[in-house]
Amino acid sequence: MSRIVDKLYEFFKAYKDYDPAAKSYWEIILLYPGPKAICCHVLAHHLYQNKFYFLARFVSELSRWLTGIEIHPGAKLGRRLVIDHGMATVIGETAEIGDDCIIFHEVTLGGVRFDPIKRHPTVGDRVVIGTGAKILGPVHIGSDSRIGANAFVMKDVPAGSVVVGVFKD
Amino acid sequence: MSRIVDKLYEFFKAYKDYDPAAKSYWEIILLYPGPKAICCHVLAHHLYQNKFYFLARFVSELSRWLTGIEIHPGAKLGRRLVIDHGMATVIGETAEIGDDCIIFHEVTLGGVRFDPIKRHPTVGDRVVIGTGAKILGPVHIGSDSRIGANAFVMKDVPAGSVVVGVFKD
Amino acid sequence: MSRIVDKLYEFFKAYKDYDPAAKSYWEIILLYPGPKAICCHVLAHHLYQNKFYFLARFVSELSRWLTGIEIHPGAKLGRRLVIDHGMATVIGETAEIGDDCIIFHEVTLGGVRFDPIKRHPTVGDRVVIGTGAKILGPVHIGSDSRIGANAFVMKDVPAGSVVVGVFKD
Repeated sequence: MSRIVDKLYEFFKAYKDYDPAAKSYWEIILLYPGPKAICCHVLAHHLYQNKFYFLARFVSELSRWLTGIEIHPGAKLGRRLVIDHGMATVIGETAEIGDDCIIFHEVTLGGVRFDPIKRHPTVGDRVVIGTGAKILGPVHIGSDSRIGANAFVMKDVPAGSVVVGVFKD
Repeated sequence: MSRIVDKLYEFFKAYKDYDPAAKSYWEIILLYPGPKAICCHVLAHHLYQNKFYFLARFVSELSRWLTGIEIHPGAKLGRRLVIDHGMATVIGETAEIGDDCIIFHEVTLGGVRFDPIKRHPTVGDRVVIGTGAKILGPVHIGSDSRIGANAFVMKDVPAGSVVVGVFKD
Repeated sequence: MSRIVDKLYEFFKAYKDYDPAAKSYWEIILLYPGPKAICCHVLAHHLYQNKFYFLARFVSELSRWLTGIEIHPGAKLGRRLVIDHGMATVIGETAEIGDDCIIFHEVTLGGVRFDPIKRHPTVGDRVVIGTGAKILGPVHIGSDSRIGANAFVMKDVPAGSVVVGVFKD
């Protein structure tokens, strides 16, 4: 039990550290859409892993309606992930995100195929993905990269890169 | 009556064929935002054609609030249209979409003028419009075209094209 | 009291003038998301100025859930502002917008730093910001400018400009 409290504390502290404008923990817990979406995802992912697919999707859709953030129950999210604003952000079934990442609104980690294989991006640690950025396909975004607003990425990004505009073959 | 059932079956089957990850028809009918938005639109469009404009807009706004997808009651949608994810997608009053198209989230089929004339795009058959793409004005998107993520289109696209980035004069 | 009525009339008239397709004032007042979001913001901004930060954020989040438009309670909006469609539009805490502007959906007036200083854009009068445009940092958008759909702006825009694509150093 104390482990869950520790994890929750770590999680909300990430938001507090990220956004000094937040006046209190209550504001983050009750009023920010990002933490709500991630908490719902923890439940949805648990249901998904136990093959309660319908229930998992139900939780995910309810979360989308409440927060505007759509995370497929199958997605794997790292620790201390911050989703800021988040409206219209979509994270696909086989997407994987490392630790300490920051994702803004209108970001898509999507697929371009529909086979039941790994078809969504893998994102390293400490990556910042700007608002409106679309990352499609099973590409790898290296750690410490920054993806600019409205960027469109369809190939691998080396660690520590800054990407702006269209980045594909 | 059996005709309505046939049409509904054809419609939901399009989603099932499109997304093999869907585990069941129940999931599509109850949990996907796209089918809900299109069903609401069928009602709103019917009200609009019978000049119940306020009621038509009410249904359309309710659908927007439920699904994040905004389809003006006047828009003409083709058969077996799939709207995937759909959050923040906006389809204007005089837009027309052909059969078997796939439209993702954050897509706009919008106008740049406000005269009560044809001012929104016409989309052919089997067109795929990627997430974040904005198509503005009474342009024509030829059949079998693919519009890339975050593209901005303001001129006619010939049939079978692939468009990425800014496409205007 | 009559002053409030005058202001409300002026405000809703701006929408009516902007959109001749609107069939009635009732449609604008009851069914358009933009006016709802701006009315909520007037309340939230008043609470914010009186240091009721939690309550101000609560009103702002409720408005976001109802309309899909997220306006920070601290933002300063000019007169006769029209927000059209508005889903996923985000306006930051220190953003300032002049009079008679038109802002579409998926627009961000955002920040790239988190210090409690002026960190969001300042927008002049009669500016039109197209759908999907992202304007980041404490930049100045000159009056009578037009920012194109999906533009990404990170430096000052002179008055009367038209901006398309990426506009940064």
